[in-house]
Amino acid sequence: MDLGTVLGLIAGVILIGTAIISGGEAVIYWDPASLLITLGGTVAATMINYSVRQVLSIFKLLKVVFITKELEPGEVTSLIVGFAEKARREGLLALEDEANELDNEFLRKGIQLIVDGTDPQLVRNILETKITFVEERHNQGQDIFRTMGTLSPAFGMLGTLIGLVRMLSELDDPSSVGGGLATALITTLYGSLMANLFFIPMAGKLQVKSEKEILMKEVIIEGVLSIQAGENPRIVEEKLNAFLPDAGVQRVVDSMEDPEMAVEDQ
Amino acid sequence: MDLGTVLGLIAGVILIGTAIISGGEAVIYWDPASLLITLGGTVAATMINYSVRQVLSIFKLLKVVFITKELEPGEVTSLIVGFAEKARREGLLALEDEANELDNEFLRKGIQLIVDGTDPQLVRNILETKITFVEERHNQGQDIFRTMGTLSPAFGMLGTLIGLVRMLSELDDPSSVGGGLATALITTLYGSLMANLFFIPMAGKLQVKSEKEILMKEVIIEGVLSIQAGENPRIVEEKLNAFLPDAGVQRVVDSMEDPEMAVEDQ
Amino acid sequence: MDLGTVLGLIAGVILIGTAIISGGEAVIYWDPASLLITLGGTVAATMINYSVRQVLSIFKLLKVVFITKELEPGEVTSLIVGFAEKARREGLLALEDEANELDNEFLRKGIQLIVDGTDPQLVRNILETKITFVEERHNQGQDIFRTMGTLSPAFGMLGTLIGLVRMLSELDDPSSVGGGLATALITTLYGSLMANLFFIPMAGKLQVKSEKEILMKEVIIEGVLSIQAGENPRIVEEKLNAFLPDAGVQRVVDSMEDPEMAVEDQ
Amino acid sequence: MDLGTVLGLIAGVILIGTAIISGGEAVIYWDPASLLITLGGTVAATMINYSVRQVLSIFKLLKVVFITKELEPGEVTSLIVGFAEKARREGLLALEDEANELDNEFLRKGIQLIVDGTDPQLVRNILETKITFVEERHNQGQDIFRTMGTLSPAFGMLGTLIGLVRMLSELDDPSSVGGGLATALITTLYGSLMANLFFIPMAGKLQVKSEKEILMKEVIIEGVLSIQAGENPRIVEEKLNAFLPDAGVQRVVDSMEDPEMAVEDQ
Amino acid sequence: MDLGTVLGLIAGVILIGTAIISGGEAVIYWDPASLLITLGGTVAATMINYSVRQVLSIFKLLKVVFITKELEPGEVTSLIVGFAEKARREGLLALEDEANELDNEFLRKGIQLIVDGTDPQLVRNILETKITFVEERHNQGQDIFRTMGTLSPAFGMLGTLIGLVRMLSELDDPSSVGGGLATALITTLYGSLMANLFFIPMAGKLQVKSEKEILMKEVIIEGVLSIQAGENPRIVEEKLNAFLPDAGVQRVVDSMEDPEMAVEDQ
Repeated sequence: MDLGTVLGLIAGVILIGTAIISGGEAVIYWDPASLLITLGGTVAATMINYSVRQVLSIFKLLKVVFITKELEPGEVTSLIVGFAEKARREGLLALEDEANELDNEFLRKGIQLIVDGTDPQLVRNILETKITFVEERHNQGQDIFRTMGTLSPAFGMLGTLIGLVRMLSELDDPSSVGGGLATALITTLYGSLMANLFFIPMAGKLQVKSEKEILMKEVIIEGVLSIQAGENPRIVEEKLNAFLPDAGVQRVVDSMEDPEMAVEDQ
Repeated sequence: MDLGTVLGLIAGVILIGTAIISGGEAVIYWDPASLLITLGGTVAATMINYSVRQVLSIFKLLKVVFITKELEPGEVTSLIVGFAEKARREGLLALEDEANELDNEFLRKGIQLIVDGTDPQLVRNILETKITFVEERHNQGQDIFRTMGTLSPAFGMLGTLIGLVRMLSELDDPSSVGGGLATALITTLYGSLMANLFFIPMAGKLQVKSEKEILMKEVIIEGVLSIQAGENPRIVEEKLNAFLPDAGVQRVVDSMEDPEMAVEDQ
Repeated sequence: MDLGTVLGLIAGVILIGTAIISGGEAVIYWDPASLLITLGGTVAATMINYSVRQVLSIFKLLKVVFITKELEPGEVTSLIVGFAEKARREGLLALEDEANELDNEFLRKGIQLIVDGTDPQLVRNILETKITFVEERHNQGQDIFRTMGTLSPAFGMLGTLIGLVRMLSELDDPSSVGGGLATALITTLYGSLMANLFFIPMAGKLQVKSEKEILMKEVIIEGVLSIQAGENPRIVEEKLNAFLPDAGVQRVVDSMEDPEMAVEDQ
Repeated sequence: MDLGTVLGLIAGVILIGTAIISGGEAVIYWDPASLLITLGGTVAATMINYSVRQVLSIFKLLKVVFITKELEPGEVTSLIVGFAEKARREGLLALEDEANELDNEFLRKGIQLIVDGTDPQLVRNILETKITFVEERHNQGQDIFRTMGTLSPAFGMLGTLIGLVRMLSELDDPSSVGGGLATALITTLYGSLMANLFFIPMAGKLQVKSEKEILMKEVIIEGVLSIQAGENPRIVEEKLNAFLPDAGVQRVVDSMEDPEMAVEDQ
Repeated sequence: MDLGTVLGLIAGVILIGTAIISGGEAVIYWDPASLLITLGGTVAATMINYSVRQVLSIFKLLKVVFITKELEPGEVTSLIVGFAEKARREGLLALEDEANELDNEFLRKGIQLIVDGTDPQLVRNILETKITFVEERHNQGQDIFRTMGTLSPAFGMLGTLIGLVRMLSELDDPSSVGGGLATALITTLYGSLMANLFFIPMAGKLQVKSEKEILMKEVIIEGVLSIQAGENPRIVEEKLNAFLPDAGVQRVVDSMEDPEMAVEDQ
């Protein structure tokens, strides 16, 4: 459950809603035809660019953003250091059973590879190739949202142009100018709102999440290879902690708290 | 037959068409002179940038987008693993006949090179050089569409400026202002519509297709070199599957379905 | 205490304030609802993109910008050259006590690693990994401000659109047009002001500070490894001075003073 | 003689010209003062950015675009394969006379270097350094056009602002509003036209030409080094053909004709 | 004395001046308050981003642009080839006296290092590190101008918004609309003029100059290392000439004169 995203969306909707209602009748801002052309046009152009399946995948991506429970990086480090200690005492094969119980499929795969006695270079190749493709897949998800964030204001402006042309060519009745212009502008409003309150921040969110996941996978690769090389658990911990500054990514912000630290921090 | 592109185009045209018709007379949106200046100007400037032949090539590119039947990545992997098994049992020469029957020219070329006993480094060089140039050629195709996507709104705005100057310099008759402005705006509408519903998503589509094709070619290179190195078919499969996460690229989206998976996936 | 930032902010506020007051009643520029939609919308969308904690971290980042006392690069160089001399005379272990008294945590960590007899390659790996993550963390801080600098004009424009639609749909009373338009434009004014006088320059400031800190850390890595390699202190100094042209970063500007120098400088 | 560029320019001018004339009096679009401020401002700012000589060089660049006869890549390949055969039969010295008759200075230089018995690594260094600088020189040419393509709409808008301020401050006579606005907009029209029909496509054209020339030079380097290494002419041909897919760059487009091919092509 | 920059600035000012004067009273374009808000706001925001010293440094940068006498690349090459000959005949030590008389500090430093018998790898490291920091320092100079080129139109627009809000909220007197709008637009005009005629081309100029200086420094590194390696002066010359195509950078343009050459050039 991602608190920031949920709070941000609610706050944004309330703010815009208040701005709309506080001015008087809110109904003038509701125009289904305008919504259809802005959102519909955006989805249509996105479908041309990607495929039906990829466009549908954004609902799954939304689930990822809102529901995903994240593993704390500290947990990963302590898991790996634990494995390193066990492997030192009892040998690599002793890891097999524990590995099978892991929820994290990437770590499980890594442990399995070294238990099978795979060549270290091949272990690295296989796991890094996996990361590369996870990264590409995540990038594609972000790209879909970014594309929609570019297209929705464009289709909003298109709707406004259609409304303007209509209104201007029927300028016989000057009293209708205001209303026509207002309706024409609604699509621009919708397009801009969708892009700035939804598509663009969502793409950013997916990127933040993706970077966190990729980082964790990189830590796992280093850890698994260290275990295979039979390195001292203390050195393994040292190495992995360099990846996760201080007490892990969750302290990223705190470490900036003390300005003295920010210049001298590690 | 690319479903997304076709559906997207039809949906987009219907949406815009409905928006136009629902407002009243649709004929005010049809202005051949405006179409000529927007589309003609875009094509003219594209021809200056590229060459006549390159501009004509976009019709061929459209065929690629709409008709191309795509090879499933899974097929490529199983083909190569099959070859690896045969080569292990019967030697590299045994692949010659089967390779000649392959539809995929890139794989055929690769098998031919190893059957001829070419040095592995040279095999890699030749095939990677081929990929580099396929990539550049594809990029050029995308660039043409992207260039048109930038030029068409610019020429739309140019047409509007021409119309505005005309209208403003003949401002004697105030009643004609609306109509003149409406006509002037039509080119901006056309330019924006072409760019956002056609040129830009089409460039994106070509990129998506190109990335898929390049990925498949990279899998083939790894596979062909593994066969030449006489690697164990099981290891070959392991290596290639790392390229094609899970059951191949077609599961890219599905693997994001389960949010739990997205964090832990492989 | 960063003089430029403080002076710039004060000067900017005075300039804009004077421009507003000199025209007459300043109260027409003060509209809490407009501020709420522009700033609130920006913060809401930023929260969707990042997390609650990351958004709150910008207050800490502001402290960094305004208060941080910077270490002069010259100091770092002379510290390291001093250590190099001591290590040559008395051995690496002699550095332990002095290192523990260092304020700069990164240098302390580096000295500690070589005192512990860590392998030089591992020392480099650990320290460079630390730099990488400090850099990423700083980039994220800058990105938050840059995101806000992009979002605030967008939400400003959104507020204006909401106001415009309202005003145009109530166009019965022509005398209210001016006032309505003025109010609608206030959000655009707020959004543009926030972005150009605050968010964007602040992101730039964080980048300038980050580059300076990263440079100092790179100097420390080279220095620590030179000490470990037992290099001649004179050569250590030569190497580090190449990093800090002339008498250190603080002379960057001066070295451009003499145009003759600028072409021939080192 | 570059057909696309010439046809594109003629078509563009005719299209815009028709759009202007078809509306009535064309003379309202002709304003030497507007041309002076738009084109003059663009040239002045370009001269500040570059130097007098660099700005004058664009006339030479135009000659390159319109007149240059291009060597077909196929010719280069067959020349080099011919040299490789001769060098195998009669030794490297036998290439001296033929090389001196070559029009292509880059190939001549390459052959001369290997005839002189220069070290292969040095041959590669010298030729690659030459390519790097040809590339930088070409980039500078494109940058000048791109800079002008950015500046001309900016100076067009500047001219419009000057006209608008004038017109608005003399608003006593409402009947002159239209004419004043029309004149003010002419500079925007000129600036946009110059950028989109000339400067930007011209920069693109220079880039397309440059990439083609660089590619040919890269083929020459590979070929010359293969000759020096005494490689089998058949292998030399194979290598160079990988650079020039199918029957050379001129088939780039054709190879996309068959959609089946596009997925499987080489 | 940089002719292009001076001529460009004079020509630009005359052109804009003529456009302003030819229309009638020029005094309507002069508004100190508008200048203050546009230029002042730009400087204030730049000071927030950088530091007081960095902002003041732009006056020194201007001196560099206008006054710097440039060394011709040909001179550098002939100097180095001369040193190479002397070093071959009389040994490296013979260069010491001549080096001390050099104006070019970078070359002097390089010669000094090899006379001192520094290890070639260390010579390269020290000199390349110096180049890296010269480059970063130059980039910072360009960035300040580019930042100002982005901020000045933004503050121009801000000034216009402030004026518009004022004007619209006092719309009682319709006759003052034109004048108010004219005054409001003046800041946009100022901001656009500053950016396009000064800040942006100036940033470009600094970049052109910087690239030229960096190139010369790279030639010096290659030359100094060749001298240290005791290479044949003829080969040294060959190597350095590859850096400076034809008769040096000053022939860059000429070599594009002959279109035949442009395709075949070296």
